[in-house]
Parts: sequence; structure tokens; C-alpha cells
Amino acid sequence: MSLTQKLINDGNAAVDEMLAGVLAAHPKHLRLAAPRAVVAQNGPRPGKVALVIGGGSGHEPTFLGFVGKGLADACAVGNVFASPPPQPCVDAAMAADGGAGVLFMYGNYAGDVMNFDMATELLEMEGIEARTVLTTDDIASSADPAKRRGVAGNVFIFKAAGAAADLALPLDQVERIARHANARTYTMGVALSACSLPQTRRLNFDLPSGEMEIGMGIHGEPGIRRGALKPANAVADEIMDAILAEMNAPAGAKVAVLVNSLGSTPLMELYILYARVAERLAAANLMIHSSLVGPYCTSMEMAGASITVMHLDDELTQMLDHPCDCAMFRVG
Amino acid sequence: MSLTQKLINDGNAAVDEMLAGVLAAHPKHLRLAAPRAVVAQNGPRPGKVALVIGGGSGHEPTFLGFVGKGLADACAVGNVFASPPPQPCVDAAMAADGGAGVLFMYGNYAGDVMNFDMATELLEMEGIEARTVLTTDDIASSADPAKRRGVAGNVFIFKAAGAAADLALPLDQVERIARHANARTYTMGVALSACSLPQTRRLNFDLPSGEMEIGMGIHGEPGIRRGALKPANAVADEIMDAILAEMNAPAGAKVAVLVNSLGSTPLMELYILYARVAERLAAANLMIHSSLVGPYCTSMEMAGASITVMHLDDELTQMLDHPCDCAMFRVG
Repeated sequence: MSLTQKLINDGNAAVDEMLAGVLAAHPKHLRLAAPRAVVAQNGPRPGKVALVIGGGSGHEPTFLGFVGKGLADACAVGNVFASPPPQPCVDAAMAADGGAGVLFMYGNYAGDVMNFDMATELLEMEGIEARTVLTTDDIASSADPAKRRGVAGNVFIFKAAGAAADLALPLDQVERIARHANARTYTMGVALSACSLPQTRRLNFDLPSGEMEIGMGIHGEPGIRRGALKPANAVADEIMDAILAEMNAPAGAKVAVLVNSLGSTPLMELYILYARVAERLAAANLMIHSSLVGPYCTSMEMAGASITVMHLDDELTQMLDHPCDCAMFRVG
Repeated sequence: MSLTQKLINDGNAAVDEMLAGVLAAHPKHLRLAAPRAVVAQNGPRPGKVALVIGGGSGHEPTFLGFVGKGLADACAVGNVFASPPPQPCVDAAMAADGGAGVLFMYGNYAGDVMNFDMATELLEMEGIEARTVLTTDDIASSADPAKRRGVAGNVFIFKAAGAAADLALPLDQVERIARHANARTYTMGVALSACSLPQTRRLNFDLPSGEMEIGMGIHGEPGIRRGALKPANAVADEIMDAILAEMNAPAGAKVAVLVNSLGSTPLMELYILYARVAERLAAANLMIHSSLVGPYCTSMEMAGASITVMHLDDELTQMLDHPCDCAMFRVG
């Protein structure tokens, strides 16, 4: 099989070279606190809970792009599809610490849990209280909500927690809002192609032309079913059937919507999906309060998309509408 | 050869279905004035020059995404890689007309020139003065600047003209600034794969694995040379050598930079390129005033990237920094 065409220099240096580019491109938003630990230029702010996110690279603009005023205070940067080790998590937290505690937020993956938990213990030895809220929005990844993976819904969940922290709410409240946001956020994706690591440039799984995999994870984790590639509306319907059943929101409820590219799927296709998602939400008497369409949580150059719906209430609406100004994401 | 995997319903309906999704997702920014004619919700504004952009679809967020306060007032939407016919251009212009004249801006392609010129004649019969500034930023497309194609540099050039119009400058001045912006904007791209039309889902040219084409256009127009895919820094150097030679800016000059994805090239690779671009600009004693990194002018799912540098002066700096609030692009 041929190697994936990538604009890189050295697969093993790709993350560090990307990071150099991100820091060069966003000097008003980001600075390097320590190796693989990026902190917002705006901060730390005394008395404010520090929201620290992170995880493997390859999902850009997740996670680096969501660091900035009103959202995350810092980010720990792992290798491609690999958790950061404890040290960058500690360094990110200490650089962002405002004396009101640290909230770690990241997707529910075993490697991330292990490394951030170790970071939490190291911070405790420094006298810094750190808590964790895992994102678990991928409804295709397990029947048990607690065992689900965190995927594109991250952007809404991090946004809600970041707003709570920016409003100077205490750690208990920021944690509560983060858990509440996560519990009301539902994502399912569809993959149309594999992707490949920069180190190998070889596809990380095989998905024959003409087929799709519903529910595939953002590192190529197996989905719910594989079958013939269907028209966009049928794909959107299959995903929306699952989301609407899980969400079980009453008529008249407000939602936020994200139609996300997994990497190489262009805006044209995302907007075709969005049109169907909007029709389905209207048919269910749900009101779209805000929406995002574009690459927000990617899997390198994987083809495919995910749909996220967040079931809003007044508090979550306030948190999503709260201004933020990040390297790669702005609201307000 | 296998068909490209796309999330569409019907290739012939893809543009209209995309447009329905765009209008559904951006009701605060956009409304449909007539078939394939999209106008900003903000407007028309009496006494303001109407900036009307447009061209073929398949380059999203170009052109639709740049409609909104402070940038374009309206947009005519063509089929994929095909100029809009005259009627949507006329309809877009009439919906945006504020009584101070219309400026059409679009990339220099024969089909677009023919159709927008016919629209200009039709508008004259309605008593509306319309002028045209073609974008010609692709330095790989011809040795003669007047014969060059317009590509990703559009975003800077449209931005400058849109700011001038938003500042209520008269048509003469808006046109002058648009021409000045275009003359100082330099783009070159590199393709790593072909793309395919939704109607056929067949690759529009053949680019073997392991090869790249420097200077390829955003519809697959032939580039300067084809050769082995090189490391990102070598690719950036080849492009920057050409741009810096053309631009010939004095030490200490300010520039704006865009590293653009042609579709499926992820942010990781764009930022690796950006790091090298920033090094090259620093070595030439040029100051980066602002930068954009991401998909701004795409070619469906083509792999590859382009680099744009705009040579700023005080006037262009003011125009780029002027706030805008568009469906898919914001400044300030």
C-alpha cells in the first residue's frame, strides 16, 4: 500500500514542529510554559479555577485551539493519538493555577486517565487541589454512559466549563457545570476512510471504497456497524435517530449543534449534513440556539463527520454564549 | 478507479443542498435574495458601496463564508468549479445596492469574467454603476501579473476592499484599495492529491503517490513543476523563494500571512509549514502583522496547501484590522 501524502519533515518531530508553528502563529493567545505545556497569555488570574485540557495530538483544533480567555487556561500536548505524560499536565496546571484549584478535562481514554491521575497526585503534593471531569459524549462507544469516549462534543463541554471558570465560580460549581454539560452532550460519527500516523504514513485500518463505518472513534476505534456508504441524509438520519432517542428532550427544548469534519471532509458535505440535521431537529420541535460547522475535532486526514447535539437549559445556554477568545475558536 | 467517498445525496443537487445548510446554519448573517444569490442580513446600507463576490462552489469557505458586515455584502453562487451565470450576479448586486455603486470582485477566470461582465451590463440598464476588480494573486499561474488566477489571497484582498466599503469610502476609493491589495498579495500552492466533482466522484486528474505538483491551481490547473514529494520545509522554501522574489519588500516591512489547506490537509501540517514560513520571513527581516492558518480557499477534498503573503502598508494594515463579522470569518 502506498504511503499517505503528508506535508511533514520528520514523522517523529511532527508534533513539536506543529507546536512551534502554533506558538509562532498565535503569540497573542498562547505561550509555552514548559515542554508540551501551553498556557494562555491571558492568565493566570488569581481566584479563578484553572481549566486544563489535553490529550493526544492529531485532533486539531482540539485541544490547543481551545486555550484562551473564557475557555481553557492551559493544555498538555501528547504525541499523535497518545496521552501526554504526567509532567506536561502538571506543568500546564501549575502555569495556569490561580489559587482556586484546577479542573482537568479530557476525553475518557485509559492512557489519559492514567497520566492525568498521576498529575493530580503530583499537584496534591504541591498543595494544589485538582479534580477531573472526563468527557464521554460518544454515544456509539458504549451502552454505559460512564464508559463512553470523549469526542467532538468536547468543544461544547469545555466551553461550558471554561465560561463557569471565567465567571469566577468556585471549583465545586465549575465541576458541577462541567459534569452537567457532559451529561447533556451527544455525539456520533461516521468514518469514510482511515487516516495515518506521521511516523508511519500507513493507514491505521482498512475501510474499502464504497463502505462507511458508523460510530467509529477518532483514533479508528471500531464503531457500531460497517456497511455500504449511504446518501448523506440517510447517514444523518441514522445518527440523529440515535442522538434523539438518547437525548429524549421535550418539545420546545433548545439545543446547540456541531457538524464536525473528521479531517478531509469538506464544508460542502458538512453543510449538506447540517441541512438534514436542522430538518430533523425542527421535526422534533427542538430549537437550534447556536451551531458550529467545520473541523473542530479531527482525526488527521480521516474522511467522515460527526454530529453533536447538546441539550441546553438556561445555565448551559449562558455558558455557551459567554464570550471566549482562543487561538482557534471565538464566541461573542 | 474507485469513486471518491463523499457525504452527499445527489451530485447534481450538492450545491443547492449545501446552500440550504449554509442558510440554516447562519440565519444571523445570511439570507437568500434570489436563487443562488446570497446577501448579508446586515444591509443594504444607504450610501455604502456594495461589495459583491462570487464564483464557483467547491472552495468553501470561499466565497459564501466571507459575506457579512465589514466584508462582502453579497455573493453569487456557481456550480462546483463553474462560474455563476449573470442573473445571480445581478440579483446579488441589486439586493446589496446602497445607491453608491457596486464593486464586483472574484478570481480571474474566463467564465467568471464573461458572466460578471454581462451582469455589469444588465446593471447599467438598471442605472446601477458596477465596476470590477479581478484577483490575480496566484504567482505560479503566469509570468504576466494581469493573466494570473485568483486563489487563496482572495481573503486578504476581499477583506481590504470590504473594510474600505464599510468605512463608507466612495467607489473610486474602494476600487483603488482593492487593486492595491491585489497588487500586493502573492500566493503559491502545492497539490498532493486530486479532488473529484460531486457529480462524478472521479478524480479530476492523476497525481501518483509520492509526487507533488507545485503551483497547481484550485481547480487542478497545471502548476509549475511536478516532482517527488519533498519535506514540508523544502516545499515551504520553494514557495517562499518565489513569493519573496516577487514581493521584493524592504527590510522591516510588515506582512500578513495565510497558510491555507486545499481541503484535506490537516492543521498539523499547516502549522508545520507556518513555522517555516515564519522563519523565512524573520530571516528576510519582515514583520508578521497578522496570520491565518486553516481552510480558507479549498478545492473540495484536494490534499495540499497554499501560502499567501500580503505586503502591507499603513492603509492595508488598517483595512485588514478593520472588524468584520461574516458567516465563516471574523476579525476584531
